[in-house]
Amino acid sequence: MILLSNDDGIQAPGLSALCKALKEIDEVMVVAPETEMSAVGHAITLSDPLRVKEFIKDGDFFGYAINGTPADCVKIALNAILDKQPDIIVSGINQGANVGTNLIYSGTVSAATEGTILGIPSIAISFDSFLNTDFSVAAAFAKKVVLQVKEKGLPKGTLLNVNVPDVPADKIEGVEIVPQGKSRVIEKFDKRIDPRQHTYYWQTGEMVMVDEDEGTDCWSVHHNRISITPVQFDLTDYKNIAKIQEWGLNAEGLARDI
Amino acid sequence: MILLSNDDGIQAPGLSALCKALKEIDEVMVVAPETEMSAVGHAITLSDPLRVKEFIKDGDFFGYAINGTPADCVKIALNAILDKQPDIIVSGINQGANVGTNLIYSGTVSAATEGTILGIPSIAISFDSFLNTDFSVAAAFAKKVVLQVKEKGLPKGTLLNVNVPDVPADKIEGVEIVPQGKSRVIEKFDKRIDPRQHTYYWQTGEMVMVDEDEGTDCWSVHHNRISITPVQFDLTDYKNIAKIQEWGLNAEGLARDI
Repeated sequence: MILLSNDDGIQAPGLSALCKALKEIDEVMVVAPETEMSAVGHAITLSDPLRVKEFIKDGDFFGYAINGTPADCVKIALNAILDKQPDIIVSGINQGANVGTNLIYSGTVSAATEGTILGIPSIAISFDSFLNTDFSVAAAFAKKVVLQVKEKGLPKGTLLNVNVPDVPADKIEGVEIVPQGKSRVIEKFDKRIDPRQHTYYWQTGEMVMVDEDEGTDCWSVHHNRISITPVQFDLTDYKNIAKIQEWGLNAEGLARDI
Repeated sequence: MILLSNDDGIQAPGLSALCKALKEIDEVMVVAPETEMSAVGHAITLSDPLRVKEFIKDGDFFGYAINGTPADCVKIALNAILDKQPDIIVSGINQGANVGTNLIYSGTVSAATEGTILGIPSIAISFDSFLNTDFSVAAAFAKKVVLQVKEKGLPKGTLLNVNVPDVPADKIEGVEIVPQGKSRVIEKFDKRIDPRQHTYYWQTGEMVMVDEDEGTDCWSVHHNRISITPVQFDLTDYKNIAKIQEWGLNAEGLARDI
């Protein structure tokens, strides 16, 4: 059984397209946020109760809508909803690429991260368009990746982050296994005055290519390639441990300084 | 100037303690969430307007409260509130350790991550107690770390994640520069019925030590050491790129499969 989730919400067309494609190869269950949860990062809901609503979409799927984040969905699916563990978790298909530094903001990736932490091989898949709702190429590729993962498994603690460019199938120039790039969104804060004369800000941003050469996820997906990045979540900067050790920080004088 | 933020909210005692300690060595500005934002991960607020409220705490500090996440606070501080860039960003002092796999859920760390992305040397500091509000040892150590970072700088793209054990200063057995461990919260979903007879769930969890040996952040902080982990945010699992490449995934047949 394949568990699907996403961060665009259970009504998102990318989720329907993914569901339709994967139903051809396995039983599918959907547990996804009730509403859009983009840019929630790896948030989990601790201070509010979570509710589980049955959700039926005509001819598409049966599933559960959760008033929480993508990570909540995967946690509650595995701990409280499903009566057996899924073989694979797939999160997506996200409307918009998840590449570069943006991975840390991605709810799509966080559902797959949560699956990986809970020991289930997991895949995040995103489509590099905010407007085009034809997810058919990305869905067809998701099926290929799932079949490979079913056959080969994934290394423990590793998920696959897949990004599909917005071009027709016959214009895709290959599949590249590449590291996460350094590109990031440069944000702007649009300052406005509300009807009660109070100031507020809209946060907006634009993806800006930074230090990007061939051989990164950003470059690949912007050059008509499908990118696949194996992702793990040990954030330790191993190469700088020795450097910080040289500082010789110690706990002396703390009692005096209080 | 030092910019302070946190995820426990602008009223949290850990933030006041940090502010008090760092005011001794530099000018301090606070931009922090209006309310508690624990476990928000690296969420940013895109779908709602952000509001900035002046916040004055008698004798403690002047700052701004934001109706957003820790990452929002750092972004809006640097892009819209401050008239000069801070030299250092410090996030904390968090009530509760941020170690092991939990780093990905941490709002405290995410403020420091955001600072690092924006090019400012950043430090996250947490105190390993959910109950003890005497942050004096952690605050004194924060001052030591900030003085070091002012003098030595930090490698580009690297932040320091500091965890202080809940013991008196003279019981601290040292400072260890260690990798992030693998321990994680094992969650439970407490199923309840509300007054209208609808089911809801509370998500709770308990930190469980997993595969922890000496020489990880979890082990250190649970053995009366202060842990410092240099953290970066390239999530690529480099060691498995070649393995996934061997699968030979390609884009053939995608057009046929639609």
